[in-house]
Amino acid sequence: MLQSPPAEPGMREEEVDTPALLLDLDALEANLDSMAALLAPTGVKLRAHAKTHKSPVIAHLQMARGAVGQCVQKVGEAEALAWGGVPDILVSNQVVGPAKLARLAALARIARIAVCADDAAQVGAIEAAAEAAGVRIPVLVEIDCGAGRCGVAPGPEAVALAERIAASRHLRFGGLQSYHGSAQHRRTPAEREAAIGHAVAVTRRTVEQLRQRGLGCEIVGGGGTGTFALEAASGVYTEIQAGSYAFMDADYARNAAPPPFRQSLFVLATVMSRALAGVAVVDAGHKAVAVDSGLPLVQDRPGLRYASASDEHGKLLVEAGEAPRLGEKLRLVPGHCDPTIDRYDWYVGVRQGRVECLWPIAARGAMA
Amino acid sequence: MLQSPPAEPGMREEEVDTPALLLDLDALEANLDSMAALLAPTGVKLRAHAKTHKSPVIAHLQMARGAVGQCVQKVGEAEALAWGGVPDILVSNQVVGPAKLARLAALARIARIAVCADDAAQVGAIEAAAEAAGVRIPVLVEIDCGAGRCGVAPGPEAVALAERIAASRHLRFGGLQSYHGSAQHRRTPAEREAAIGHAVAVTRRTVEQLRQRGLGCEIVGGGGTGTFALEAASGVYTEIQAGSYAFMDADYARNAAPPPFRQSLFVLATVMSRALAGVAVVDAGHKAVAVDSGLPLVQDRPGLRYASASDEHGKLLVEAGEAPRLGEKLRLVPGHCDPTIDRYDWYVGVRQGRVECLWPIAARGAMA
Repeated sequence: MLQSPPAEPGMREEEVDTPALLLDLDALEANLDSMAALLAPTGVKLRAHAKTHKSPVIAHLQMARGAVGQCVQKVGEAEALAWGGVPDILVSNQVVGPAKLARLAALARIARIAVCADDAAQVGAIEAAAEAAGVRIPVLVEIDCGAGRCGVAPGPEAVALAERIAASRHLRFGGLQSYHGSAQHRRTPAEREAAIGHAVAVTRRTVEQLRQRGLGCEIVGGGGTGTFALEAASGVYTEIQAGSYAFMDADYARNAAPPPFRQSLFVLATVMSRALAGVAVVDAGHKAVAVDSGLPLVQDRPGLRYASASDEHGKLLVEAGEAPRLGEKLRLVPGHCDPTIDRYDWYVGVRQGRVECLWPIAARGAMA
Repeated sequence: MLQSPPAEPGMREEEVDTPALLLDLDALEANLDSMAALLAPTGVKLRAHAKTHKSPVIAHLQMARGAVGQCVQKVGEAEALAWGGVPDILVSNQVVGPAKLARLAALARIARIAVCADDAAQVGAIEAAAEAAGVRIPVLVEIDCGAGRCGVAPGPEAVALAERIAASRHLRFGGLQSYHGSAQHRRTPAEREAAIGHAVAVTRRTVEQLRQRGLGCEIVGGGGTGTFALEAASGVYTEIQAGSYAFMDADYARNAAPPPFRQSLFVLATVMSRALAGVAVVDAGHKAVAVDSGLPLVQDRPGLRYASASDEHGKLLVEAGEAPRLGEKLRLVPGHCDPTIDRYDWYVGVRQGRVECLWPIAARGAMA
């Protein structure tokens, strides 16, 4: 069941029901503007990742500032965007199984839809779906540029797969997907530079080898919020796939030299118990705020530490300063923005203490 | 947006789209029967916790086997159950804020709704909501029996709060809520016995002191899947609030002398990449299976280890035996059942390899 919106436009923030996902619109817009300004001089385009925001509304805000389109990880996310008017979508991931591929091919009638592959059998399956739907689908070769997860080896293996794609009447070779996910959160700039230095080198070599076989890369995509400046400066990547930059989170804030964006996303929580001395319990546990990358922080209250999360409770320790009142509302900074957003049906957009808008999180739960 | 069901009745399990939340109906029914059989000789009733299953369908299966009603943690969960015909619901938690209390009081017109309190100001707020709605609401005093989270101190503080409730024309003193959450996962029986021994002692003392003031406890509630046999044997508790017993998970399986129930809940995942030697990547990361209590296990495939979860990917290491095929579907045992269920809109009920039913997870995301 879809949950009811926890607020109405015009309400004061203190009146919003909790837990709620707050979006500080001034900070969001500043982040969107900053990314556009940072990328403009590089000539590299932004294809923002909708796995984070899951919202056609935010996709359109990004495209109004120059983003060429959107990335997604799942067909369900691609559907939510295409149905919301997003014209250019890359599934930056493998799509396996005939039912999902049929949905993907059907979408190609209303939007430009590209997808990745790292296996010749997968290419055959995409080809069959494209042929059945009467569409031609661009397919990118995903290479493993250091994350050790998906992707063929850079170099000859990638070239062979690209040739297999280019040989199909129902497909088109779309370029390379070369994203180093785990590099985004390496703590020091030197670690991130080393990881992306390797990614750039193997990607550059593969692009060269493809060119020697007459295969041009329309897209060379990768780069997240933690490293995008490196990929953008590489001269190899043509598109950046950052998503978290719009919101930020406590994990990105732990990077040394963190990304130059503001925290715009919060979980608003209510203090529901003050029965134990030195403790304030809030109504947002790990069902309400993702803890896979660490516990949330309490915004603007340095003396309060979110010390443990259970399903529906967050236990805050009062380490300094005044304890919050029973019923008081607190802004939590999520440990990890993407999975936190995916728990909610609505963004509550606030500006200077007032609710300005409610936006549906259209691809909430779109895992398939 | 509500997600489409990933299957249809009659399909073979291999045809179910992934990620999907599978419920093995034989195992589920065996678990429901076992709990009923285990509690019957004690005379203690089951008030199963719907924070786990979030489904009126499963609530009715539990009540058909003797459960007196259901527990919930949130008003939204109470609404989903009451709207689904569950007649007797205890919010085993504090409810703070006038909007939530108004919804709670409104529900008292169509079901028996009780709630907990651990603060006199909260009691006043519940009283105001009950008066405004023209209903009389039973309120239980939550005591801190060892978990150190919510709840007043056992003994005189609890008695004073009970007297405040009993003095109200719009409320009724409903008894004691005395749940020791963290004891459920203490690994050895001796640790669990020590924790619940303490909980039983302070609860018994409080019940006695209430009796001396003429206050009887209609409900003395507590006990989860890890410890319920101890509370049921105590002679003090009247209701058991287990929820996970219906499903089980990898964390409960790590208890020494684990609870006597079968694993009925699985996340069905598809192998989406086999590009890296010794690795199989599945399409279920931590958005699809909760990792707050540890990573999932791979059912029936001891040589495969789910080694790391990112947002949309699970990385499996092939440590022994045959590697799974690209496209192969695997059953994952969630690390933690409650938050995993809360990620999905549908249970896919399977029996002996066939889809038998689809049940909506009506309180999915009901955090408020």
